Amino acid sequence: MSFKLNILGCSSAIPTINRNPTAQLLNVNERFFLIDCGESTQIQLRKYQLNFQRINHIFISHLHGDHYFGLIGLINSMHLLGRKKELHIYAHEELEMIVNLQLNASNTELNYPLFFHPLSENESSVILEDDNIKVSNIILDHTIKCSGFLFEEKKSPRKIIASAIEKYNISHDKINSLKNGADWISDNGEVVANDLLTKANTSAYRYAYCSDTRFNEGIINKIKHVDLLYHETTFMHELIDRAEKTGHSTTLQAAEIAKKANVKKLVIGHFSQRYKNLNDLLVQTRKGFSNVILSCAGLVIDFQEI
Amino acid sequence: MSFKLNILGCSSAIPTINRNPTAQLLNVNERFFLIDCGESTQIQLRKYQLNFQRINHIFISHLHGDHYFGLIGLINSMHLLGRKKELHIYAHEELEMIVNLQLNASNTELNYPLFFHPLSENESSVILEDDNIKVSNIILDHTIKCSGFLFEEKKSPRKIIASAIEKYNISHDKINSLKNGADWISDNGEVVANDLLTKANTSAYRYAYCSDTRFNEGIINKIKHVDLLYHETTFMHELIDRAEKTGHSTTLQAAEIAKKANVKKLVIGHFSQRYKNLNDLLVQTRKGFSNVILSCAGLVIDFQEI
Repeated sequence: MSFKLNILGCSSAIPTINRNPTAQLLNVNERFFLIDCGESTQIQLRKYQLNFQRINHIFISHLHGDHYFGLIGLINSMHLLGRKKELHIYAHEELEMIVNLQLNASNTELNYPLFFHPLSENESSVILEDDNIKVSNIILDHTIKCSGFLFEEKKSPRKIIASAIEKYNISHDKINSLKNGADWISDNGEVVANDLLTKANTSAYRYAYCSDTRFNEGIINKIKHVDLLYHETTFMHELIDRAEKTGHSTTLQAAEIAKKANVKKLVIGHFSQRYKNLNDLLVQTRKGFSNVILSCAGLVIDFQEI
Repeated sequence: MSFKLNILGCSSAIPTINRNPTAQLLNVNERFFLIDCGESTQIQLRKYQLNFQRINHIFISHLHGDHYFGLIGLINSMHLLGRKKELHIYAHEELEMIVNLQLNASNTELNYPLFFHPLSENESSVILEDDNIKVSNIILDHTIKCSGFLFEEKKSPRKIIASAIEKYNISHDKINSLKNGADWISDNGEVVANDLLTKANTSAYRYAYCSDTRFNEGIINKIKHVDLLYHETTFMHELIDRAEKTGHSTTLQAAEIAKKANVKKLVIGHFSQRYKNLNDLLVQTRKGFSNVILSCAGLVIDFQEI
């Protein structure tokens, strides 16, 4: 069982030699969710030995290039390397035409089914759900329509205690009901409480991704108590006016959101290329929220250790 | 005065950690011409400290992603970094819509004028010409419409010999005619031959770029006697059938074109990612044409040294 976040890039706007634009890979029990896909994301995935053919779902927050210019290359490489599996893309609707126009220009008919799931501009809802995970969009406040994402693991069934099953000689056809919390009643009517037969599984983790956005208290309810919040901090707080104008947040604004949402941990990113020493951003954010770390390519955050 | 080619990538199809897709920068007397622009080209330009704002003309051979997926990112970064100068793009017509759709999706109105010059699918002609250089397209034989490019420097005016000008006390208004080869006649009728007053400038160099293409003798006349031919060698000659099928060339085919066109030097590239040791490609090409080198990112070819 795993719930891990791999950071692949943490730069805003312009790729530089040392900082790739935004992309993250969330591993939920070996299912891989790619979040944003700036230029060179496929190279970052290779660099960190993350097999991109295992990605089945890609979430694009908005159509500024630093969040999606690497997508067409990734789609193309998946094709050239023989992918057959479905790929699902969650993005604002214009992206479908952008991708299709490029596939047509190269006369490419993909080997695999590609599905686009358009994001709403102003309504938050569940955009992907199955037995294990639920993903919703979060409406952000940027210069163009922009969406964050909330990933919520579903509560896992309880774990069977093998020695207890043996002790009470419980038949296999009862196992599923025990996993779901039922007590067990023996042939002679003895009731054995479920917590003698099973133990609780690991927690169901929650991750909120919020980039790019102005300071926006409207998102707090949606992200309350998440284990990890990624919130952009494009600027130091001294540039609060520039942040407002360009649809971004400062360090202290991200800290305030984290505090008000009572999240366990905050990871900051989407740094303006003007900042060479990222530690300044970290130190300033910490003034408003103590449990914070810097994102940087190669960082892996294991939710079991938060 | 300079005529130099910077190789920025030499891989075909899929970017890998060690090999970037195709892009080259030609420096003709400090005017910069970008040829193809695979993903991450802007990072390669930064890596080799080549200021991309100095590029005013970009030539895209065809609309397979490994030749242009980096273009929109470069256009966008030029904008974000405050470019005001015109940018000219020479490419097949579909590219204009692909770029514009992406600019519209991000609500970007470029700070600088961007001009598209559509390439003909089947006719070779001069596509850019001024006092110093002439660029023509070369019709190649690939799986989609594809164009090579021939860069021809114009013969430079002759260089003035300062000491001779002083000796004969020649007035400044005569300088231009001397540069163009005229003799000088003094007030008392003395004729001084031009070669006492000026010396020949460096040669006018010619560079032919041919990627991607099947073996195609039709291009030989166009590229005859060039100083440098870049010809793709996606495959070793053992894969000649695959080359034919996928619209590419082998080592020995590139060598044959170089030999028949009687070029001075051949540089090979666009290597399939299956080849880890590129030296095998070099050795095999050399069997057909001796003056050949491998392209690789970071290589700079100075035409004065060919």
